[in-house]
Amino acid sequence: MTRLDENPTTRTVPPVSPPARRAAAAPGAATSERIDVAALGEQLLGRWAEARKHSRELLRDDAFHRRSDLTLDEQRERVFGQLQHLLDRDAVLRAFPKRLGGLDDHGGNIAAFEEIVTADPSLQIKAGVQWGLFGSAVLHLGTEYHHDTFLPAIMSLEVPGAFAMTETGHGSDVASIGTTATYDPATEEFVIQTPFRAAWKDYLGNAAVHGRAAVVFAQLVTDGQGQGVHAFYVPIRDDQGFLPGVGGEDDGLKGGLNGIDNGRLHFDGVRVPRTNLLNRYGDVAPDGTYSSPIASKGRRFFTMIGTLVQGRVSLDGAAVVASKLALKIAITYGSERRQFTAADPGREEVVLDYQRHQRRLLPRLATTYAMSFAHEKLLAAFDGVFSGEHDTDADRQDLETLAAGLKSLSTWNALDILQESREACGGAGFLAENRLTQLRADLDVYATFEGDNTVLLQLVAKRLLGDYAKKFRGADAKTVAGIVAGQVGQAATDRSGLRRLAQNVTDRGSTGRAVGHVRDEESQRALLTGRVETMVAGIAARLRPAAKASPVEAARLFDSNQNELIEAARAHAELLQWEAFTDALSEVQDPVTRTVLTWLRDLFGLSLIEKQLAWYLIHGRLSAQRATAITDYIDDRLLPRLRPHALDLVEAFGFAPEHVRAPIASGAEQARQDEAAAHAARR
Amino acid sequence: MTRLDENPTTRTVPPVSPPARRAAAAPGAATSERIDVAALGEQLLGRWAEARKHSRELLRDDAFHRRSDLTLDEQRERVFGQLQHLLDRDAVLRAFPKRLGGLDDHGGNIAAFEEIVTADPSLQIKAGVQWGLFGSAVLHLGTEYHHDTFLPAIMSLEVPGAFAMTETGHGSDVASIGTTATYDPATEEFVIQTPFRAAWKDYLGNAAVHGRAAVVFAQLVTDGQGQGVHAFYVPIRDDQGFLPGVGGEDDGLKGGLNGIDNGRLHFDGVRVPRTNLLNRYGDVAPDGTYSSPIASKGRRFFTMIGTLVQGRVSLDGAAVVASKLALKIAITYGSERRQFTAADPGREEVVLDYQRHQRRLLPRLATTYAMSFAHEKLLAAFDGVFSGEHDTDADRQDLETLAAGLKSLSTWNALDILQESREACGGAGFLAENRLTQLRADLDVYATFEGDNTVLLQLVAKRLLGDYAKKFRGADAKTVAGIVAGQVGQAATDRSGLRRLAQNVTDRGSTGRAVGHVRDEESQRALLTGRVETMVAGIAARLRPAAKASPVEAARLFDSNQNELIEAARAHAELLQWEAFTDALSEVQDPVTRTVLTWLRDLFGLSLIEKQLAWYLIHGRLSAQRATAITDYIDDRLLPRLRPHALDLVEAFGFAPEHVRAPIASGAEQARQDEAAAHAARR
Repeated sequence: MTRLDENPTTRTVPPVSPPARRAAAAPGAATSERIDVAALGEQLLGRWAEARKHSRELLRDDAFHRRSDLTLDEQRERVFGQLQHLLDRDAVLRAFPKRLGGLDDHGGNIAAFEEIVTADPSLQIKAGVQWGLFGSAVLHLGTEYHHDTFLPAIMSLEVPGAFAMTETGHGSDVASIGTTATYDPATEEFVIQTPFRAAWKDYLGNAAVHGRAAVVFAQLVTDGQGQGVHAFYVPIRDDQGFLPGVGGEDDGLKGGLNGIDNGRLHFDGVRVPRTNLLNRYGDVAPDGTYSSPIASKGRRFFTMIGTLVQGRVSLDGAAVVASKLALKIAITYGSERRQFTAADPGREEVVLDYQRHQRRLLPRLATTYAMSFAHEKLLAAFDGVFSGEHDTDADRQDLETLAAGLKSLSTWNALDILQESREACGGAGFLAENRLTQLRADLDVYATFEGDNTVLLQLVAKRLLGDYAKKFRGADAKTVAGIVAGQVGQAATDRSGLRRLAQNVTDRGSTGRAVGHVRDEESQRALLTGRVETMVAGIAARLRPAAKASPVEAARLFDSNQNELIEAARAHAELLQWEAFTDALSEVQDPVTRTVLTWLRDLFGLSLIEKQLAWYLIHGRLSAQRATAITDYIDDRLLPRLRPHALDLVEAFGFAPEHVRAPIASGAEQARQDEAAAHAARR
Repeated sequence: MTRLDENPTTRTVPPVSPPARRAAAAPGAATSERIDVAALGEQLLGRWAEARKHSRELLRDDAFHRRSDLTLDEQRERVFGQLQHLLDRDAVLRAFPKRLGGLDDHGGNIAAFEEIVTADPSLQIKAGVQWGLFGSAVLHLGTEYHHDTFLPAIMSLEVPGAFAMTETGHGSDVASIGTTATYDPATEEFVIQTPFRAAWKDYLGNAAVHGRAAVVFAQLVTDGQGQGVHAFYVPIRDDQGFLPGVGGEDDGLKGGLNGIDNGRLHFDGVRVPRTNLLNRYGDVAPDGTYSSPIASKGRRFFTMIGTLVQGRVSLDGAAVVASKLALKIAITYGSERRQFTAADPGREEVVLDYQRHQRRLLPRLATTYAMSFAHEKLLAAFDGVFSGEHDTDADRQDLETLAAGLKSLSTWNALDILQESREACGGAGFLAENRLTQLRADLDVYATFEGDNTVLLQLVAKRLLGDYAKKFRGADAKTVAGIVAGQVGQAATDRSGLRRLAQNVTDRGSTGRAVGHVRDEESQRALLTGRVETMVAGIAARLRPAAKASPVEAARLFDSNQNELIEAARAHAELLQWEAFTDALSEVQDPVTRTVLTWLRDLFGLSLIEKQLAWYLIHGRLSAQRATAITDYIDDRLLPRLRPHALDLVEAFGFAPEHVRAPIASGAEQARQDEAAAHAARR
């Protein structure tokens, strides 16, 4: 934040007229009226506002807050104790069936759960392991017998449990796990076996210390036939420790989330009754006959896995909450902290008044709003499927694609936002008391668990390619050729720069006119949508020869497009975020709020376009002049307009001081500045 | 790393010919011969190879290694104990004068010091506080009296000390600190005073527990006149605790580096003898008369601060070592780990064979090589100045600019490399035993201490503007107008796309020909250099009106260019890295090694250009076709060519297993894969 005006050399630049690329900010462009913080806050809380408020109220209690002075064992015990406390306060059973004491409220359950991040991400994930993974697996993969037999003790925490899916050797590729469950018709039991070291279950919460049982995913074998991955309810521990045949290891200290006892499990001839197979999607009769309501092995697997989508949904929401907290801290501090003298030698500048500081924080604020609105849509889709209101195959596939795309972006964004916020607070940001480093450490693994983001984005890309292919289904060769020829023609135009030249002629001499063509909502939408469509069409065309190639050649071809596939999926998910933000604008009643949120949406949309400016230039979607105008518009218009509203925009997140708990965002910095200023005034 | 060939929908893309944008990798492009790992390793160790080897040999001893099972207090005591151990093993006094038992070896001292990162960054920084900051301040800001009086006890660790520069209210803006040192001629003492809370010294290593003395930076006041910031040797603690008038606080837990006892200090009427002023650049006579060998207050301040450049130099080197460690771990694991089946249904694919995995790790490997070679140049510049061999004002300014630029890039890069390496190792990367999370947590603060990177890049930008202005010094108005008109004309051509069209005509129809025009060394240099020059000229032109503007207007103008100033500085520092890498190529004897390193340099250079592709397109430096060809050349040529050499390229970093200490990089994964494969073969 050094100002350059102290340096005499910068004033010796020769007195000739440069092209005045940057226009002065239009006077009066920033509205002096304030946004309606309360109404915006309600909108952000969304459809499940009551669940969120209940959870937030509860989480003001420091009994739930992370303490940084505990040993590893103490942290684990504290968090385990907090689970009981959450249970006692009616905070965690909303998703379970009414007949067992729940509320059958899937959306509200996740909404309330996400807010736990403000207390301690370890507590969130530990609760998620117990009720969200272990309990949900029994609920969604089991049938009435399992619900009646196992759920009450899971819900009451009498049986803490692990979700034993991942193995040391296989994480995101669940279909390839090595653990087997072989049916023995003589005793009507399954024999659970770990065949080699890589097949040890690994990274399982509750496995190292607290778990008494586990839902174990294993390759079901009956009548000598492998039937693919199924889930089994397996007791693993009693008061004396591991049960016979079960062994394990502690994963030890991790990069974060150390309130959770992650560990490893392995099985040697562990027998469970036939009825411990969670048999909603596949069953074995006493004589060993396998049956399933889903004929295709692949579809069966994906259906089972699909019931577990709520993990991704809730991580997306947790990432939103953490991002809001980070920006609440950094923007509050940035609005009070002063550093370096600019114009007025008597007073240093507030750091958020520097362009670079705005560049660092305000686009991330816009992203957080987009993430928040997008998450609300995801939660609605999730509730639709799990409440049974909208539960077709297509609904489930849409939900899974949406969850995969949004979770990938938001968990990565949260790390970026936490880190930039930490750096924007300098040394103070590095102190544990200001929470940014610990939140970042805890959320780190969100990018790779519940599906590695890199893998998830490939699932999204697969879906995009599938949808693209459907467009052509049934079309005759001539029609198809026509469509593709149109694209080729488009590509030729892109390359030649003819479109750009046309834009240049239109825009020449007017930055205002240039940006006028891209800053409105429809232009943003067209640019963002066009990129996704063009990328998908391009990849599909390049993959076409794979259909007739050898497996080796086809694999090589796919691999040579892997990077672009992932980028296309990212572009698609960004578009969904942008659309969610845009849809949210129409719900804003207060005109000042709507104006400010529209600027914020524009900042989000134009920042997305700016990040991929090269693509838009190469493909002739933007002229050089319009591309430049986007950056200028962000720097010279949007940032200065939004700056006065930054504090209100983080105030609307609705956190109480007990949620924030960072001394630098408590007003302490303002008090120090005032004291220093008073001292200077006296001299 | 999902492969897409399982998905039938991707095969239904219609059978028409798309433009074959991606050429197949040329057969035989990757050399099957191996690089000369030993020779390359020596080259990387550089001019101070012996010092590095001595340090590395020492650091194999687990007495120096970080332990993760200690409480905060235990960590601090352990690291403090390790300082004595380093001293006993002759590891830390190379930079001190021969007459006091040192070696007057400045480059070797830093080289040996940087390697401590492999043991524990806390140990590195704690040693840096004692001998590099506290000791160096006495050495470089003091004179013979101070050397004789204070250095022996500092060197021997008899007096552990703090470097009390930063205050809660002022970090990078040292000139504005609030602590005062007022001369009292009656007693010939300075009175050290903290006037308000924001002027407390803060974040000081050794301040919370171990420090017995401090070099305190304060505004020197004598005869009622402020003479600016000077440094004073101030005892702060004895066996009973703080000395009278001294107070403090513990900074407590931090995001990392918890082996160091950072804390706060404040002073109330603390008196030290006049001779405790470290008086090399400014002195006060017994009667209170101030004198200095440097007349300008500003230059005096920057000269004093400049002597402390070694902190930045050593952080740059430490970031290089940490980046090498991260890639050693991630590339070793990525070469053994298998996940998802591609072509061969019997065996899963090695993850580093996936394009995306290569995209994640290999450009970062190239960056690490560039950082390493650039650091070697920085170290030589540092040694030149501090040995007195090349110690003009210009040399010092060059050194400071180089250190500011390289430290900013390398510390940010290290965080990015550590994080990508962690994610590339999935859940295993999140386990503390695999070290990536802890290294990242420790290095986090490297981005904001010893000068916040954002501030440092602005110092670099200032220098670039200054140099630019000098070009015009003495030129008459007509010449200047001519030069600038040329630039304006250039800009007009850029915008019109005429240059791009010319490139298109030349390149049409041949991706190979298109990339041929940019992939060679001279084209890379021209593109990278041209960007820096154009950006600087553009900013200088836009800042021109500041010379005649009011202070408020001038400040506004500077601020509206702040973001671009920082980007220009970054581009400049990247160019320096690229040049260092390129210079290093000429020293490679072995032809295979030189070929492979040239590919790696090309990957670095083209990745830099790819990252800023929009700029090159907007400014007409690249056509759309050439821009596209760069990405294709990286994906289809450079990554596949470098892949077979990836293990050798990290082997050349020369780490012993005791430096790496990550179970996932120990061969354990290979053993697990072999066992699983053997199991599959038996079935």
